[in-house]
Amino acid sequence: MQLGIIGLGRMGGNIARRLVRDGHEVVAYDQDAATAQALVDDGIGHAESLAALVESLDAPRAVWVMLPAGEPTEATIDALAELMAPGDTIIDGGNTFYKDDIRRAKALEPKGLNYVDVGTSGGVWGLERGYCMMVGAEDATFDRLEPLFDSLAPGYGDLERTRGRNAPNERAERGYIHAGPVGAGHYVKMVHNGIEYGLMQAYAEGFELMQSKASPDLPEDQRFDLNLADVAEVWRRGSVVSSWLLDLTAQALAGDPRLDHYSGAVSDSGEGRWTVDAAVEQGVSTPVLANALFSRFASRKENTYANRLLSAMRFGFGGHVEPPKQ
Amino acid sequence: MQLGIIGLGRMGGNIARRLVRDGHEVVAYDQDAATAQALVDDGIGHAESLAALVESLDAPRAVWVMLPAGEPTEATIDALAELMAPGDTIIDGGNTFYKDDIRRAKALEPKGLNYVDVGTSGGVWGLERGYCMMVGAEDATFDRLEPLFDSLAPGYGDLERTRGRNAPNERAERGYIHAGPVGAGHYVKMVHNGIEYGLMQAYAEGFELMQSKASPDLPEDQRFDLNLADVAEVWRRGSVVSSWLLDLTAQALAGDPRLDHYSGAVSDSGEGRWTVDAAVEQGVSTPVLANALFSRFASRKENTYANRLLSAMRFGFGGHVEPPKQ
Amino acid sequence: MQLGIIGLGRMGGNIARRLVRDGHEVVAYDQDAATAQALVDDGIGHAESLAALVESLDAPRAVWVMLPAGEPTEATIDALAELMAPGDTIIDGGNTFYKDDIRRAKALEPKGLNYVDVGTSGGVWGLERGYCMMVGAEDATFDRLEPLFDSLAPGYGDLERTRGRNAPNERAERGYIHAGPVGAGHYVKMVHNGIEYGLMQAYAEGFELMQSKASPDLPEDQRFDLNLADVAEVWRRGSVVSSWLLDLTAQALAGDPRLDHYSGAVSDSGEGRWTVDAAVEQGVSTPVLANALFSRFASRKENTYANRLLSAMRFGFGGHVEPPKQ
Amino acid sequence: MQLGIIGLGRMGGNIARRLVRDGHEVVAYDQDAATAQALVDDGIGHAESLAALVESLDAPRAVWVMLPAGEPTEATIDALAELMAPGDTIIDGGNTFYKDDIRRAKALEPKGLNYVDVGTSGGVWGLERGYCMMVGAEDATFDRLEPLFDSLAPGYGDLERTRGRNAPNERAERGYIHAGPVGAGHYVKMVHNGIEYGLMQAYAEGFELMQSKASPDLPEDQRFDLNLADVAEVWRRGSVVSSWLLDLTAQALAGDPRLDHYSGAVSDSGEGRWTVDAAVEQGVSTPVLANALFSRFASRKENTYANRLLSAMRFGFGGHVEPPKQ
Repeated sequence: MQLGIIGLGRMGGNIARRLVRDGHEVVAYDQDAATAQALVDDGIGHAESLAALVESLDAPRAVWVMLPAGEPTEATIDALAELMAPGDTIIDGGNTFYKDDIRRAKALEPKGLNYVDVGTSGGVWGLERGYCMMVGAEDATFDRLEPLFDSLAPGYGDLERTRGRNAPNERAERGYIHAGPVGAGHYVKMVHNGIEYGLMQAYAEGFELMQSKASPDLPEDQRFDLNLADVAEVWRRGSVVSSWLLDLTAQALAGDPRLDHYSGAVSDSGEGRWTVDAAVEQGVSTPVLANALFSRFASRKENTYANRLLSAMRFGFGGHVEPPKQ
Repeated sequence: MQLGIIGLGRMGGNIARRLVRDGHEVVAYDQDAATAQALVDDGIGHAESLAALVESLDAPRAVWVMLPAGEPTEATIDALAELMAPGDTIIDGGNTFYKDDIRRAKALEPKGLNYVDVGTSGGVWGLERGYCMMVGAEDATFDRLEPLFDSLAPGYGDLERTRGRNAPNERAERGYIHAGPVGAGHYVKMVHNGIEYGLMQAYAEGFELMQSKASPDLPEDQRFDLNLADVAEVWRRGSVVSSWLLDLTAQALAGDPRLDHYSGAVSDSGEGRWTVDAAVEQGVSTPVLANALFSRFASRKENTYANRLLSAMRFGFGGHVEPPKQ
Repeated sequence: MQLGIIGLGRMGGNIARRLVRDGHEVVAYDQDAATAQALVDDGIGHAESLAALVESLDAPRAVWVMLPAGEPTEATIDALAELMAPGDTIIDGGNTFYKDDIRRAKALEPKGLNYVDVGTSGGVWGLERGYCMMVGAEDATFDRLEPLFDSLAPGYGDLERTRGRNAPNERAERGYIHAGPVGAGHYVKMVHNGIEYGLMQAYAEGFELMQSKASPDLPEDQRFDLNLADVAEVWRRGSVVSSWLLDLTAQALAGDPRLDHYSGAVSDSGEGRWTVDAAVEQGVSTPVLANALFSRFASRKENTYANRLLSAMRFGFGGHVEPPKQ
Repeated sequence: MQLGIIGLGRMGGNIARRLVRDGHEVVAYDQDAATAQALVDDGIGHAESLAALVESLDAPRAVWVMLPAGEPTEATIDALAELMAPGDTIIDGGNTFYKDDIRRAKALEPKGLNYVDVGTSGGVWGLERGYCMMVGAEDATFDRLEPLFDSLAPGYGDLERTRGRNAPNERAERGYIHAGPVGAGHYVKMVHNGIEYGLMQAYAEGFELMQSKASPDLPEDQRFDLNLADVAEVWRRGSVVSSWLLDLTAQALAGDPRLDHYSGAVSDSGEGRWTVDAAVEQGVSTPVLANALFSRFASRKENTYANRLLSAMRFGFGGHVEPPKQ
């Protein structure tokens, strides 16, 4: 089918390519004209403006917005809302906060515009592996767009089928789901990323514990100089902790076992934060998800006021003066 | 090669079977004679006593102890030490604390006995999938036993090779490593299990956040009745959080999406605890591993003294009386 | 000076009493007429309606709203805004979210109405001990109302003066501060309560560790049957952990050392949650404040989905079946 | 009564002074002869050696060891054990691990020597305020030494009596307790310090949240430039979070509100770690105590392997490159 796509960064460009490969017709727009131009050789149409993009599509139109969440996405959707016609659909494939989806869908409804939120996982690997998608949409809208999701998804692949699975439809097994009404797609993706933080932190703490085991502070017979690239590799095979993140760990350690390329200041994105906010709002205990987030916060700061205050108290009650940093 | 094996539970029996299938000669002993008898049809020899087991093997002997960690393993190794001869090797394949391995190896050394610790992951799936093994041993001892590990390990399988991997030997890619001297095998396995707790808790918290999203306490448009079996299934395909534990989650939810079979009182074993002890000993911050453990502790208790004290303080400063449990 | 007060619950009634004792003129209104009537003997005026309350005061009026945060406070302030005149002031002494204060002040500004937020700590003890207050307000408004805060605050008392203190004014030493512009009072109070959760949880965990030390699971010589009422009492004298919360703990344990009166389902209020939200918003690592909150969440639930999923995974990979709860 | 004291550091010297002031006879020994000499003017006797110290006392002797826990204390007790006679008593007033107390008492028993563990809180303020003490000892030994504890303790002071207190003896109200058999004193002190870590971290996180509120990253109307010295001061008066640690905080902030003197690398001592070990051993959930400890660990390290691994994974799945540190 036909799709307009806006935003041709790491994700948007590959989504366009994967759709065209599967026979869909794609017209793309990007603020940076050169970026859009570069896709022409891949068979992707190129519009000079938002208005031109909308005009180039047949009604009922579908336009996929693949921009950074927040202001860039919001402004683009506002502009599209002015250009599109009743029956058209705007798809937000970025990392939008699910309550913003709900708000937008309500605002677009009086204009007869449909809104769809697609949570997309797969990162830079999606072109090859396919994208795992969680979609929030009204039923009819989802049904109309389903061919797109089917093309973008990884498909059955060679994964072993889940024992006991007896589901009414096999979309999930092909790599996409209709999670629920508007907002549900990004909600599931948000939790996905919250889990991702927790998983990553679990590996990180464990590998730190293996790396530190070579420390000269330990008794000699308890010191182990472990080959962490080998550990990551062996765990890929038959262990309980095998995962795609472990595959990536094995890959990183194969090339640079000491990880000297990295500063250790770890960024976080909205989804990890929103997950904790959701936990607080719903009264759900999520110590692992929250502490994984807090560890990232701490990784980016030195000598915080909090820690200086601890030292000040220690000096106050015990006259303790801290030794220098390790 | 030839191996004696002691303890034919869930793990030991399958280890024996997998070795015999690959052409090794195995003699087994179990306190429960019937258990050992049952393996005879699989081609596994059967000894009536520890002494008979040792006698039935050619020197230098190798005996694999596959018993619960602690007293059962300790007593068996003590007994074996009396029966075996210089040059023989005792293998502890259970979940022993790595400092106990180091202590034992030192105690056996004057008798000329070798000691090997094998951390084994793979659980009930090992017979089919193979066992992922981390071995702590002196070099010569490891070399002599390597054919056993090679048979037990999963082998290359059809996993994609790790990009950039350029390792001197490919044991890790076949599913076992010589982690280091005695104790290193169980240390790596201990951290493996610590990570496992963290990974499991991350999924658990995330799925709780999706399950609770159907709560009538939430505004109606923010309530989602998510199909969690589908969510787990779709994440298996191309998402960042795909893993074997997710495969198991998908399987559990396919059969029983509400998980009503389970009480929610979650056990823990020594390794999760020792991992936190190691973190404390080495001064490594492991909030995720520790909080995953604490969540299990809390899951097994109701109305703790700690919580009652919180209520008592709240009553003390604010006259607050708690509402009943949810 | 003259003050109207709305809401005569645990806090509001005592605030009115303390003001009248100190020579102020107070007119009170409560939805429940009987409650207001009961204060007449204490010299507190009684209005039959919001409108009557406003009418009974001389311009420029000051009205203190002391109601549950959220809807009750919001609706009352909306009603007052219709009744009051330019130059008048609305004081919110409840536990309002500081962003709501900022929003309201902006909405009231075009009407010439002033808004003040007062974070108040002291609970049921305030009538005797005085209230500790953190005020957010424009300078001129704060100055006009200061006599009220001065009367409500504990005053210098017999506390030792803080060494090295060299502050431009001594309000803080008398028990109230002008924290900053509108919102700042409730922000500081919010963080105060966040800290309170952390402090309480620290004591709770510690006392649990002392109570559990009598467990028959421990080796006999490591089992201690500690008198926890005595421990709390002794720590009040000269120890680093002495505090008012410890005083309350000592009091609770003096009467009921086993705390059998309490269910252990611990409530939480908005401020503990907002503190974690603020930490997430500002990228500040607050593991103790967040985990104290999560412990309360967990205290109110049994057999969560999260924990059942952990058991399901454990069954999946290891065939483990959980033992019954303790 | 008569007491020998070994170790005249920050604690030992003041203990000796406080005892002499109250009429006891004290003979002191310190490795550094000058330190001991300096106390002569305060009326404290001075021994040239351990042997001389023991000889100078009348049987049954009591010697208080006030040295760093671990090797220094252990070696001194071993030496004393050779010098002392049946019926004599060794008191360990340092921060010894309670299981070491139990082990030592057992080792000394065949020689007829008594062992007492005294957990002591009060730090550099003890000379003035008195020491809060938790004692582990056999009943007869405790009774014999009680006059010493009574002199060292703060006494009733001017604290309000705990309502409802109806205890058989009032030792706790004078500032010392007989916690239980050997080990119980240091166990209670260990938990005391674990709680102390949690309390300190709660304040530290809260003050960080108030300090960061001035950040230019926040919307202007939500930015507050709070006077934290005033906040600490006002909370001392009538608030729920008032405590001695808050007094110290107020004092530190009065002199240096930005805390620029401190590096923010926060040390920890054995007791915080042992508390977490005890929690793990007893299966008690202590997220606040453990995370307070972990925050200190993290404060002392930069660019940990754990954090570098997180960045490596982020690069692996998303091509993310971290921005520089804040």
